[in-house]
Amino acid sequence: MLALVLERKGELSLREIDLPATVGPDDVKVAIHTVGVCGSDVHYYTHGAIGPFVVREPMVLGHEAAGTITDVGSNVKNLKVGDRVCMEPGVPNMSSRATKLGIYNVDPDVRFWATPPVHGVLTPEVVHPAAFTYKLPDNVSFAEGAMVEPFAVGLQAATRARITPGDVAVVIGCGPIGIMTGLAALAGGCSRVFISDLSEPKLQIAAQYSGLVPVNITKQSLNDTVSSATEGWGADVVFEASGSPRAYDGIFNLLRPGGALVLVGLPVEQVAFDIPGAIVKEARIETVFRYANNFDRAVNLIASGKVDLKPLITETFDFKDSIAAFDRAAKGLPQDVKLQIRLGA
Amino acid sequence: MLALVLERKGELSLREIDLPATVGPDDVKVAIHTVGVCGSDVHYYTHGAIGPFVVREPMVLGHEAAGTITDVGSNVKNLKVGDRVCMEPGVPNMSSRATKLGIYNVDPDVRFWATPPVHGVLTPEVVHPAAFTYKLPDNVSFAEGAMVEPFAVGLQAATRARITPGDVAVVIGCGPIGIMTGLAALAGGCSRVFISDLSEPKLQIAAQYSGLVPVNITKQSLNDTVSSATEGWGADVVFEASGSPRAYDGIFNLLRPGGALVLVGLPVEQVAFDIPGAIVKEARIETVFRYANNFDRAVNLIASGKVDLKPLITETFDFKDSIAAFDRAAKGLPQDVKLQIRLGA
Amino acid sequence: MLALVLERKGELSLREIDLPATVGPDDVKVAIHTVGVCGSDVHYYTHGAIGPFVVREPMVLGHEAAGTITDVGSNVKNLKVGDRVCMEPGVPNMSSRATKLGIYNVDPDVRFWATPPVHGVLTPEVVHPAAFTYKLPDNVSFAEGAMVEPFAVGLQAATRARITPGDVAVVIGCGPIGIMTGLAALAGGCSRVFISDLSEPKLQIAAQYSGLVPVNITKQSLNDTVSSATEGWGADVVFEASGSPRAYDGIFNLLRPGGALVLVGLPVEQVAFDIPGAIVKEARIETVFRYANNFDRAVNLIASGKVDLKPLITETFDFKDSIAAFDRAAKGLPQDVKLQIRLGA
Amino acid sequence: MLALVLERKGELSLREIDLPATVGPDDVKVAIHTVGVCGSDVHYYTHGAIGPFVVREPMVLGHEAAGTITDVGSNVKNLKVGDRVCMEPGVPNMSSRATKLGIYNVDPDVRFWATPPVHGVLTPEVVHPAAFTYKLPDNVSFAEGAMVEPFAVGLQAATRARITPGDVAVVIGCGPIGIMTGLAALAGGCSRVFISDLSEPKLQIAAQYSGLVPVNITKQSLNDTVSSATEGWGADVVFEASGSPRAYDGIFNLLRPGGALVLVGLPVEQVAFDIPGAIVKEARIETVFRYANNFDRAVNLIASGKVDLKPLITETFDFKDSIAAFDRAAKGLPQDVKLQIRLGA
Repeated sequence: MLALVLERKGELSLREIDLPATVGPDDVKVAIHTVGVCGSDVHYYTHGAIGPFVVREPMVLGHEAAGTITDVGSNVKNLKVGDRVCMEPGVPNMSSRATKLGIYNVDPDVRFWATPPVHGVLTPEVVHPAAFTYKLPDNVSFAEGAMVEPFAVGLQAATRARITPGDVAVVIGCGPIGIMTGLAALAGGCSRVFISDLSEPKLQIAAQYSGLVPVNITKQSLNDTVSSATEGWGADVVFEASGSPRAYDGIFNLLRPGGALVLVGLPVEQVAFDIPGAIVKEARIETVFRYANNFDRAVNLIASGKVDLKPLITETFDFKDSIAAFDRAAKGLPQDVKLQIRLGA
Repeated sequence: MLALVLERKGELSLREIDLPATVGPDDVKVAIHTVGVCGSDVHYYTHGAIGPFVVREPMVLGHEAAGTITDVGSNVKNLKVGDRVCMEPGVPNMSSRATKLGIYNVDPDVRFWATPPVHGVLTPEVVHPAAFTYKLPDNVSFAEGAMVEPFAVGLQAATRARITPGDVAVVIGCGPIGIMTGLAALAGGCSRVFISDLSEPKLQIAAQYSGLVPVNITKQSLNDTVSSATEGWGADVVFEASGSPRAYDGIFNLLRPGGALVLVGLPVEQVAFDIPGAIVKEARIETVFRYANNFDRAVNLIASGKVDLKPLITETFDFKDSIAAFDRAAKGLPQDVKLQIRLGA
Repeated sequence: MLALVLERKGELSLREIDLPATVGPDDVKVAIHTVGVCGSDVHYYTHGAIGPFVVREPMVLGHEAAGTITDVGSNVKNLKVGDRVCMEPGVPNMSSRATKLGIYNVDPDVRFWATPPVHGVLTPEVVHPAAFTYKLPDNVSFAEGAMVEPFAVGLQAATRARITPGDVAVVIGCGPIGIMTGLAALAGGCSRVFISDLSEPKLQIAAQYSGLVPVNITKQSLNDTVSSATEGWGADVVFEASGSPRAYDGIFNLLRPGGALVLVGLPVEQVAFDIPGAIVKEARIETVFRYANNFDRAVNLIASGKVDLKPLITETFDFKDSIAAFDRAAKGLPQDVKLQIRLGA
Repeated sequence: MLALVLERKGELSLREIDLPATVGPDDVKVAIHTVGVCGSDVHYYTHGAIGPFVVREPMVLGHEAAGTITDVGSNVKNLKVGDRVCMEPGVPNMSSRATKLGIYNVDPDVRFWATPPVHGVLTPEVVHPAAFTYKLPDNVSFAEGAMVEPFAVGLQAATRARITPGDVAVVIGCGPIGIMTGLAALAGGCSRVFISDLSEPKLQIAAQYSGLVPVNITKQSLNDTVSSATEGWGADVVFEASGSPRAYDGIFNLLRPGGALVLVGLPVEQVAFDIPGAIVKEARIETVFRYANNFDRAVNLIASGKVDLKPLITETFDFKDSIAAFDRAAKGLPQDVKLQIRLGA
């Protein structure tokens, strides 16, 4: 099977590779149509590892995917050949303690596409459990279907925040995940979301959306902006989506008494955390690890028109130009929110 | 002070009446601009009582109000003369056990406008605690400000539902509170809300809103509609907003396993409740009594444009035509969502 | 395999029957030591059906069981031969939507021991998924292990109540499930639990436990007792565990504003539900269907000594006397809380 | 009025001082019987300040108090002269946004006894709002009544943890607040609580309680202990009650996937927080600032016998020996859990 293979750090090939093709009784086979390029894919390409996950053998990249069912296992009832679908890339041990509790995303045995040693899906056809494959309504395109995975991260953040309808939120960091989080927070009940960054081009992309209020922290104080918008009370929810240790300076000043801080961004360096600042406001702090039980909700929000992710798809590459797509993504241009690769017609 | 006075069941006068005018240290005085006519006001007019609350002496009607601050008490810091505001009509005992818990709406000692023996606000000027008076941003009109109170009921329902972002909901009953509940559910995170009624004119009003899906139960089965839209799984949340005992027939069939039924409508007759049907789905059932801590959130949602209540204001009457407004409201025309009375310029 | 077989309504045999014996890769085989007699087992014996579940073919009874592992499948890691265990009798479809959400108890495809057409475990050896088999610490006897299942129902009730530590609770109905619920409520954070019944012998069994306060409603008013104990405020949580429609008369008078009513008992007749009474207190109503994710917690509470279920085991019968045990249970003597049948040495 | 006055850092006097004595309509007057010595009182004595709160004028110490009502204001209904009571030392602005939400503990305007510039209650008689004064049942002594305040901190921690009945918890730090937290966690639903410290005398005090499992980290690994007790799964809740920055090393290793870390101790130095460690388990982190709405629950738990705080009262001093009591407390002996001062007969 032809696939985009990360041979080792810094070296990509579009070449044939042996991949599992047996459709088990609970599985479906999917002809891949569109795959988004994620920051983690790019990071494996440029660094060869993310934390403890090290690329030691050639690995197919890609985990944000949509396509069409071409085969179904004998137990599968909810899907049929021809269905247009998107897929959740992490598959837990279905009998584990975490899975039984409904938090399968934190099952230590999860196998996740394009996370060593598990292959990803930049290849024409993959086999996947039906339980983690979600039908797309007719009015949701494959391109949007391939956006469900990154949006699901934002939706997990919005869910764990436990938004009360009408809340005011702040998102720190206007990268792809920051914007997804802001859109999910709006869809999930916030009245307004301030989103901050240093990069004007990034903020301009967010500014297209009604309800997302860009704050360029090179020009204005985020703290003053939030305080003034809330008459000194503070935001109900603050989402940290930058991963920058500096974001933590005075972060609890942004929050109202009893508010919630939601950690979405993964800081690479150690963070000095203002515990007294959290305690004096009796803040709740939630963390977000991927997502669970929300692909169907994400699809619902896209299908109903409440969330429009199309403006975030910056450019689409043909499968044969996959390596160019990754080289472009590796540049990290501020105006590039999401690059996608199209395999299907 | 001139006021719309319900002398007794069936008899209204627009006449002078003595009303308290002393501004205490924690109070504000408000020049009333707009007052909405609520079903409960009309019910006191036509029936002279609601449950245990009986009109025994002349009482000023009206509790959905917006206006302008004309005086402030010595302790008041968050408001000043000239501020445009709306008011929460129920004032609890601030030292009660319920109030300390944050559930002041269920404080047994709440005094509520236009609920015997407490006067309402269809009069040019009223005194009210600053703590229950909320500033309106410039882009929220007095007419919208007077809609905050009924919308707050819907918002309370959406809040108690504990919506997970992307949920599918059903609202039974397309009267004013049903529509408010549907809009609050959408604003509060639902992807889609099916709203059912027997009356096509009522449903056509709801149909103006993207995300509200009208279901005329004289023409189609609500159960089949929901089942088909959710692949047989059921709705995440069902709001009962009709108050009709018949709405309870098979109501748990609409719900997914583990879903929530939220009771907003007050049935006047006894209801046969399908407890085994609730138990087998391990349903959660929430009830809604007015609102607490959400006028500010309601104002935020209106100000941000997420919720547009203007299409629900059917007609506006001058204060001198108040009795005509009530006579019109008493007809209960299906196309009349909200009638308002304007006192200010 | 020898087993206690319900041939049809009213007819039990202790006889050989063919039962599945293949240990799949995720299964364990368990030598059954002790099985409790449950009201539902007895009801199938005396009535031949429970609601839609009708005994149409011979069925082995029994679903409250503990025993010893005699074989393990190839994937099983958390259990080994010789482990003493208890078993959760309901097995869901592990890939279903409900199971993924962590609410596998309401998966419509659950297969539950001794619920037609699924055989129970009054037989010397059974095969069961390891994921629903729980290790017993050395200080928990087989007899206690066989009590985990009914206690899990009470624990589910206590969990869904979302007790705040120090809450005051009421349990209506002092049968086995009522007592289990009362003990779970105490273990789960309540300071005191009033438990009411008409039967003095039942109440005397509850009265053995510190914290369970018996209320004989033939002699004193439950409402007055609760009101006086809470200075007129009401109980934080009321558990309905009698299944009697009369229990619903004035049930919301027992509750504090904002309190929770938890429905554990399954009424067989229609119930007149006081919806206005619920709404005016903005009550939350929870329902309980079996249990999920709490066998491990139940075992923890028994092992730590916080919950002592031994006083509730009224009498133990030999396997050969199983029919006598059922005939005794069918009498429904008030002092009989739990009868058990011992198969092991 | 005679009072124990902190003149300035390091200098205490037992002398006359003018204190407010007017009983307002919502107030009660209380003859103080017993006052506990708290670490914060001692810290003001030894350091003259806690964070931003600096002793700039003479201040009466003491905030853990019980006594007898000697006068009541005209609006007071729930209390009468002669009632034995304990008092909640923080009084918020009753009309504030935080108070209306039920989180009056984080109202920025709270006035708290013995926190500059507010006087404490080591004096024979004080005036206090009835809303923050709680009746003691006959079987709760004044000494226990004066323990309600520190126990309320533990109870706030147990409440914010949202314990599921049967949870396994860890408390880091076996000082007074650590033990209170451990007891509250047990009373609030935990099956077992591991409590760790370096000090064997402190651990021996905890070891008196069934359910509190002492772990001396100079002799055994806390991580190994918890892992072994939970078959490698981790604790459901970890309470950090030491305030030591070192406690944060590897703290998320103690936690199960999806578990909760509750921050009770206030670290004085900056803490290096392992955010990736929190995220990969999708941990929830709660913080505790004093308490709200739990004095009544604390009294309930003591009165019902579920929580016995008497073993924690190390020694009782006469009012005239107050300075000696503070000098003893300032030594910080490991076996001294709580010293109390008795003013009443």
